[in-house]
Amino acid sequence: MRLTTVRTPSGTRAARLDGEQAVEIDAPDVGALLSDPRWRERAAAASGTRHTFDQQDLAPLVPRPGKIFCVGLNYRTHILEMGRELPEHPTLFGKFAEALVGPNDPIELPAESSAVDWEAELAVVIGAPARRVDEAGAAAAIAGFAVLNDVTMRDWQYRTLQWLQGKTFEATSPFGPALVTPDELPGGPRPSLALRCEVDGETVQSANTDDLVFDPVELVGYISRIVTLNPGDVIATGTPGGVGHARKPPRYLADGSVLVTEIDGLGRLTNTARAAARVPA
Amino acid sequence: MRLTTVRTPSGTRAARLDGEQAVEIDAPDVGALLSDPRWRERAAAASGTRHTFDQQDLAPLVPRPGKIFCVGLNYRTHILEMGRELPEHPTLFGKFAEALVGPNDPIELPAESSAVDWEAELAVVIGAPARRVDEAGAAAAIAGFAVLNDVTMRDWQYRTLQWLQGKTFEATSPFGPALVTPDELPGGPRPSLALRCEVDGETVQSANTDDLVFDPVELVGYISRIVTLNPGDVIATGTPGGVGHARKPPRYLADGSVLVTEIDGLGRLTNTARAAARVPA
Repeated sequence: MRLTTVRTPSGTRAARLDGEQAVEIDAPDVGALLSDPRWRERAAAASGTRHTFDQQDLAPLVPRPGKIFCVGLNYRTHILEMGRELPEHPTLFGKFAEALVGPNDPIELPAESSAVDWEAELAVVIGAPARRVDEAGAAAAIAGFAVLNDVTMRDWQYRTLQWLQGKTFEATSPFGPALVTPDELPGGPRPSLALRCEVDGETVQSANTDDLVFDPVELVGYISRIVTLNPGDVIATGTPGGVGHARKPPRYLADGSVLVTEIDGLGRLTNTARAAARVPA
Repeated sequence: MRLTTVRTPSGTRAARLDGEQAVEIDAPDVGALLSDPRWRERAAAASGTRHTFDQQDLAPLVPRPGKIFCVGLNYRTHILEMGRELPEHPTLFGKFAEALVGPNDPIELPAESSAVDWEAELAVVIGAPARRVDEAGAAAAIAGFAVLNDVTMRDWQYRTLQWLQGKTFEATSPFGPALVTPDELPGGPRPSLALRCEVDGETVQSANTDDLVFDPVELVGYISRIVTLNPGDVIATGTPGGVGHARKPPRYLADGSVLVTEIDGLGRLTNTARAAARVPA
């Protein structure tokens, strides 16, 4: 099953994708839908208004996740090529909901930063409460997967030792376009999918999600030892090599840059960076 | 004005403190109340059920803040005594709502950690949306202040370079007992208040909130350049010297430890640490 959150004149609505059609579900968004333990049945049975998916205005897949955990340093090849050892524990930091934008929305380039960088990531969306779960429980708590770009203000990320302030700028992180349930993906809850990021048509990141050090099932289990993961919570699983900050010279998003973030089987985010002054208040 | 969130048989309710009495307001909690731009008038006019405050079961002041920003390294005296330079920018990291407990609730000592430490802090509660605000706008966006203990699992905090995982353990961070508006405090939006932390009756932290490097008004202004602060959002402004991890030998909370966190004019949190196995599921 594939689920998305469409924007309609009366607000956002969760929708089920039937091929090219998005069929409205009676829930304001995918996050609200997932908070109902019977979300699968409700989504499967829905027969609301239909929209043509690729012409539809889409909201962030889950517009207001209770928690967004981000993971750093999680692609094996990239860690090893930098000469580092594989980490014993996942590096976790936060992002808040106000950072999210829809799959085709502009990314706000804030006047405060001159180092806005990309980080294409596989996102895990939680579909059931998970606390101290084992491997089977962790797999069962995953509603599905989507695409997220953890767009980062490098200058603010490195102002202090804690990265949060560079990671949670308003309206910077596209998330969507659809939640795809594990049964539709090679590898299921540990999906093996090609991931790409393009800036102005040039491929800047290319990897496979089977290269993750801590896979989605491990991450859910690990985080659930810290805190309950709840429906609609999101885990952004980390980014592979190829970010702009590591280039010589560094390369960042500029006004008008087109950022494409794509994962095979999950879909594509296409976002144009816009200087904040040009974004209507 | 002083506001609190009481637990009643039919769920939580916001309440106004009139001396020793908590008078119910028609809102499920202080966070929900603050999301109404007319919260001051609504709170002042309320005349619901009365409770005796010091006998009342209290919830976390804002049970589900949209964002909790925590600040590190923010007490001048402590930074200087450690031989460090004062920071140019605040160090910010996150905490999620599931970490919060009420002002008199048990603190869950997780089986996963053997280094549970205290951090008494002044908490800022936001009362109006704030985006790129100047000093006056930042002061106006502060609904008031409360007490928060940023209880920290040191072993998890230092597993990786990012502190989040040691800062957001389930049911560990007491928050309350009441929001006190700036007009009731010496220093107003930059309050000058004595802060103390006691463990089993011994004073372990003692400082004054006028020693903050980045005061509440500066923090609101700074964070509002990153992201919109919304009503009910919380900023935990950092802790002074005296944490258990810095002692030789280190000292941590144990099953049965009584943690008292108090700020003059704001009130007191009294929380008993309980090993997770003893906490009913």
